[in-house]
Amino acid sequence: MNGAQALIRTLVACGVDTCFANPGTSEMHFVAQLDAVPEMRAVLGLFEGVVTGAADGYGRMADRPAVTLLHLGPGLGNGIANLHNARRARTPVVNLVGDHATYHRHYDAPLTSDIESLARNVSGWFRSSASTAALPRDAAEAVSAARSAPGRVATLVLPADVSWDDGGVPAAPVAPLVAGRVPEEIIDVAAQALRSGEPAAVLIGGRAVRERGLVAAHRVAARSGAKVLGETFPARLERGAGLPPLERLSYLAEFASAQLAGLRRLVVVDCRAPVSFFAYPGKPSYLVPDDCEVIILAGDGDDPVGALEALADAVGAAPDAAPVAPSSRPAPPTGALTGPAVAAALGALLPEGAIVSDEAQTSGVWAPDATAGAPRHDWLTLCGGAIGQGMPLATGAAVACPDRPVISLQADGSAMYTLQSLWTQAREGLDVTTIMCSNHAYAILDLELSRVGVEKPGPRALGLLDISTPPIDFVALAHGMGVPATRPADSAALMNDLSAALTEPGPHLIDVEIPRG
Amino acid sequence: MNGAQALIRTLVACGVDTCFANPGTSEMHFVAQLDAVPEMRAVLGLFEGVVTGAADGYGRMADRPAVTLLHLGPGLGNGIANLHNARRARTPVVNLVGDHATYHRHYDAPLTSDIESLARNVSGWFRSSASTAALPRDAAEAVSAARSAPGRVATLVLPADVSWDDGGVPAAPVAPLVAGRVPEEIIDVAAQALRSGEPAAVLIGGRAVRERGLVAAHRVAARSGAKVLGETFPARLERGAGLPPLERLSYLAEFASAQLAGLRRLVVVDCRAPVSFFAYPGKPSYLVPDDCEVIILAGDGDDPVGALEALADAVGAAPDAAPVAPSSRPAPPTGALTGPAVAAALGALLPEGAIVSDEAQTSGVWAPDATAGAPRHDWLTLCGGAIGQGMPLATGAAVACPDRPVISLQADGSAMYTLQSLWTQAREGLDVTTIMCSNHAYAILDLELSRVGVEKPGPRALGLLDISTPPIDFVALAHGMGVPATRPADSAALMNDLSAALTEPGPHLIDVEIPRG
Repeated sequence: MNGAQALIRTLVACGVDTCFANPGTSEMHFVAQLDAVPEMRAVLGLFEGVVTGAADGYGRMADRPAVTLLHLGPGLGNGIANLHNARRARTPVVNLVGDHATYHRHYDAPLTSDIESLARNVSGWFRSSASTAALPRDAAEAVSAARSAPGRVATLVLPADVSWDDGGVPAAPVAPLVAGRVPEEIIDVAAQALRSGEPAAVLIGGRAVRERGLVAAHRVAARSGAKVLGETFPARLERGAGLPPLERLSYLAEFASAQLAGLRRLVVVDCRAPVSFFAYPGKPSYLVPDDCEVIILAGDGDDPVGALEALADAVGAAPDAAPVAPSSRPAPPTGALTGPAVAAALGALLPEGAIVSDEAQTSGVWAPDATAGAPRHDWLTLCGGAIGQGMPLATGAAVACPDRPVISLQADGSAMYTLQSLWTQAREGLDVTTIMCSNHAYAILDLELSRVGVEKPGPRALGLLDISTPPIDFVALAHGMGVPATRPADSAALMNDLSAALTEPGPHLIDVEIPRG
Repeated sequence: MNGAQALIRTLVACGVDTCFANPGTSEMHFVAQLDAVPEMRAVLGLFEGVVTGAADGYGRMADRPAVTLLHLGPGLGNGIANLHNARRARTPVVNLVGDHATYHRHYDAPLTSDIESLARNVSGWFRSSASTAALPRDAAEAVSAARSAPGRVATLVLPADVSWDDGGVPAAPVAPLVAGRVPEEIIDVAAQALRSGEPAAVLIGGRAVRERGLVAAHRVAARSGAKVLGETFPARLERGAGLPPLERLSYLAEFASAQLAGLRRLVVVDCRAPVSFFAYPGKPSYLVPDDCEVIILAGDGDDPVGALEALADAVGAAPDAAPVAPSSRPAPPTGALTGPAVAAALGALLPEGAIVSDEAQTSGVWAPDATAGAPRHDWLTLCGGAIGQGMPLATGAAVACPDRPVISLQADGSAMYTLQSLWTQAREGLDVTTIMCSNHAYAILDLELSRVGVEKPGPRALGLLDISTPPIDFVALAHGMGVPATRPADSAALMNDLSAALTEPGPHLIDVEIPRG
């Protein structure tokens, strides 16, 4: 058995059975062995950003890693932006990067580069496998690292000769590190802070924004009078009717500061104390009020849900104290297409168990409210700020959850980074409905231009934020990659098109032309 | 004057007046100052791989750098693959990467990452500017580094506060290091080697494959009996009727070894001694015969053309000894569309002064022969092996040379990495004719699969090389980005469409369906 086959068998034994791939010559032995190990499913992406973003979406929904397959340093480079997002989301990903044969590297052939320097940028674990004998154990350790709490990108470099040499023996799984129980002393400190009677909040993120964490945080709040806040960009938020609702911190530091104003105690659970996304002249970067004490209840590697449940018990909260969102849907929109109309259509039609990949930027600000009372669903956001994540993420989520409808709520500017996702959706017959919010602008930069203090921007500056010339025709682009697409003329047509897309299996795209900003 | 304006004024003073940009919030002050310095032209790309590949194409044709504008680590990540190609091409590029404000970095906001580790992978020069006072001089030094022989990617990181703070004073240009004269002793060594009477070749690349270098190398050959070989993937090869022809080393190591077989002396000029592009089981990586002496006539930073001219004189070559390619064009193709038919159409119609960006891979192997006697033109190839370069390179070449027709000879699989180039071509009205060779496969990997020793690949392996399902419709994709496109049914229609595209200004795409392999 060569190294490649032993590697694939080890991955499968470790619970990694999905490979998002964009291979080249140095990965051909791995590719050839896919026929020997049919338990491994290979999903082709036409661009590495699709591959890595799909691995992120898969990992968020499956709670176990997929493996990527990338071609040397440049292939990894193309995947860096979405690996950055996965790193920020703390998604388990096994990031497999093919390399030249070990003895070939020093010849500095054209595709040679310093892969490690690139990989370190996004990886919580890194190893370049040195031999076929070591490879299976390296793979098992990579999976273990990826799965160890709270989850991370583990990059394994696979030299071609390590892959093709014979003598591979599959390795047994290596147990990942599980989340650690938070010591009682820390629970007590948090409980005491909440009992102080001072204005307080519990800020939750990461694993704490799924049902159990939400329930526990809201129990704490109901008993202590603290408010519950959610991190701005959660990796996977469980929400909808019957679940405790979550007020997320605003992306806009001005608004986030208002949400935090007056607090004297902030209990932080599985996320960071809030900082401004960008710096702005004369404005603070750190958003917690000066006189607010921050208590880290659970950080990286801790069990945030257990800690919240212990805290709820410590403050004496009743088991059923958490409020839940009532079932409600907005009225179907009528008239012209606008951001609020898109949100209302989504809220009116969102199916039970849906997964929403939200990269709608300025066009999507109304969507969370409009879907708050829709049937239970998952909401995935852009944790790392590197745009071009939404469509790959939706693709990977659909691979992970073939029985759940996926909505890709997408801004047009961001879509153009990784639009090749549509082809993979068509090839795999994935049930992804893309709602393309086409305002023909980098509209968020209009806002940012004023926020950074630019008054009266000139036509050349504004020209760089405008993508209306030539207009991008997403219906044509979707058709070009085998995805059925429509462009509704008004809200009634949008309701029809969205309803049809959600009913039919396979991918669809709805291009919604909405006014800018 | 703020830092951004002082930076732009410095760049312009240093001869850098074109900015390929995909900016975000941290770059908004730079963007705002574009109106204050209209000498700087900003060209928007919808994806950073377009931006960096265009800067490569621009630099190759203009012989001076453009400046990029990228958004933090993830934006740089998206640009890495084509910066890798630019590094291998030794193209002068000033790679400007926006960053958080200096004081904001330690908050580890979502978009924060280790930019330097990414940048070092592709940069021959790196600096993160520390203050508004230092910024203009940093920029002048970046330009100098980019322009210093033989040319390199110089990355300058621009923190937002360094950009927005006041007190910027434009800096004067810093003289680049010019190519060094090769010592006479080395010329003598090479001359002696060639006088030995042993089988010899002069292998030229880099700057030596433009007219003067070609003439000098062929003078040497005519006098000494050596043969002239060209590196496999030259950055910019001047060729066509009236210029000395160049036999390039084959990409396939098997063929390259045959070209090198029997040589006892190899004089290497502005390129590397040949190595195999990839390693293959049981095959050598270093392609020079064991008993062949390698003489490096001119390496990085040396003046290769001066060295070749000195060598020609040293061996006593006549000034007019270099043969030139006769003017000739292939007969217009007829019948079905094939790779040879595409090549014949290109050879039949290639306009005087054209620039060809060649990323046609297996579909393009006939094109160099078919155009060898066409009117004089430039031929740009993929120096770094990171596919997805061709269309951005054509875009940048067209910006650098608005009066010259650009042909983007493109493979379909490679096209899908940076297809967004079409939008920039449409927006800027660039005279680029894309000939899309659609064989619906990563056909080169079919070949590589057998070259790495895989016998009888299975259906799952072959499935990863097949991009026919769904078929990619490049006419629809081009229309979706505002580029007129056609799909000729046969060779006669291809001749018509190509002739029309070359006659009309602005971008066009011709989707040529050809058989795989």
